Order: sequence, then structure tokens, then C-alpha cells
Amino acid sequence: MGRKKFVFAAVGLIHTPFKKILEVPRWGSLTEKEAVIEIFPEFEEGLEGIERYQEIEVIFVFHRSKGPKLKVKPPHDDKERGIFATRGPVRPNPIGLTVMKLLRREGRFLRVKNVDMLDGTPVLDIKPYKGE
Amino acid sequence: MGRKKFVFAAVGLIHTPFKKILEVPRWGSLTEKEAVIEIFPEFEEGLEGIERYQEIEVIFVFHRSKGPKLKVKPPHDDKERGIFATRGPVRPNPIGLTVMKLLRREGRFLRVKNVDMLDGTPVLDIKPYKGE
Repeated sequence: MGRKKFVFAAVGLIHTPFKKILEVPRWGSLTEKEAVIEIFPEFEEGLEGIERYQEIEVIFVFHRSKGPKLKVKPPHDDKERGIFATRGPVRPNPIGLTVMKLLRREGRFLRVKNVDMLDGTPVLDIKPYKGE
Repeated sequence: MGRKKFVFAAVGLIHTPFKKILEVPRWGSLTEKEAVIEIFPEFEEGLEGIERYQEIEVIFVFHRSKGPKLKVKPPHDDKERGIFATRGPVRPNPIGLTVMKLLRREGRFLRVKNVDMLDGTPVLDIKPYKGE
């Protein structure tokens, strides 16, 4: 509808233990499984200092989203809700956001916990959340 | 560099009291000024139920970002840091994220507090944060 568009490129990928959608926990805090965020070499410098944070916000793409839908019935819910009142994947812009525990940084790889996304998920951004 | 690209379109705009970059508070929580998120008519249905939340996460575009830069010297800081260890605007993907107090919804308009972005900032997504 002529709305302004923005083009973003992945800065990395998340390697998680979840190969299928049904394996992904509903919330990252429901699993103790670890994962690794791989930042592409050309962005590694941008990670400097991130290791001082215990928690990070990771913005990613729901790359397998079959959306968008404006109304959804969340699991364990009996009625439809607007997509902006949920955190589900079928959003107008399929952008996901999860707070993860940062266990350690090894160069351009971040070992993290509390992930709730598929293996191979593209990462758009990382922001410091808690720590220092 | 051949990295996978994603195209997103704004779902709305934020109308804030801050017309110039120097007027924008460093943190949304530093100001009591109110703002209004306008969601475009075609996405209004997606807001249903958002009014049950007292706080929302708003994902937006730093549309005036003069980036990207991988290293920055944050204000009040004496050394350079990697951009992913800051929340500054000159990110590889200029995506911003702010938790706002949701004061009320009026149709496709959300009256909010704790904003730290320029007037006219494009909104990509809204997610429930606290409430219910």
C-alpha cells in the first residue's frame, strides 16, 4: 500500500538444538539448552565489549513464518487476539525478539541460553540488556 | 557481501515531542512526555487485546541513522565500544527497541510514555511486554 520499506541484511545466524518448529519451546526461559550465535566476520568488531553483559536482546527474523495474519489464536488460549497482542511469528514484519543469557563470547561466536528459535535463524541485531 | 536480505514495511509511525535529535532523551524513562503511536488502518485489527498490557515493546527504525559504524564512543563514555554493546543508532541494521508504558488505546492510536525517538519514526512491530 505504498508504505515505506526498509531492507535489512542478517548480521549472523543462531545455531540452536531445535531443527523443527514443534521442538521450539514457547519461551526461551523454558529450556536450559545452549545455543550459539554466529556473527558474520565482517561484523565481529561490533561485538567488542558485549562480554560485559550477562543478558542480551537478540532481534531476529521468523524466517519460516507463514504469515502475516492480523488475528491469531495463541496456543492454550480460547479466543483470537490481535497479532500485536501476542509474540507469535505470523506478524506483518516477522521480527522476533528474545532476551538471552550470554554465557561467554569466543571471537565472533556468542554462547547463549534461553533460546526459543529454530536452528539457522537469521540475526538482525544484538543489544545489551543487563550486566556491567 | 551476499548476505540474505529482508524487506520490512512500516506498520505505523510514532508522533513524539522530539523534532530534533538533540531533543531526544537518552532513555525513554528519563521523560514523562507522552507520545502517540499511529498504526496504519490496514493493521488496526492486529492491535486487538493490546490494551490489556501496561507495557509494550516497540521495534522501530532509526530512520535518521548516519551509520553503520562498528565502533562508537557513547556519550559520557571515554572509550570506544562495539556497536552491539551499545544501544546507539548507527547499527548495521538501524533497528531500535524501546519498552513504553501503554496509557491507553484509541482505535488505531496508542497513547504511550517513555519514548526516546524522533517525531515521525517508523514503527516495524509492537509486542506485549507486561500486564494482563
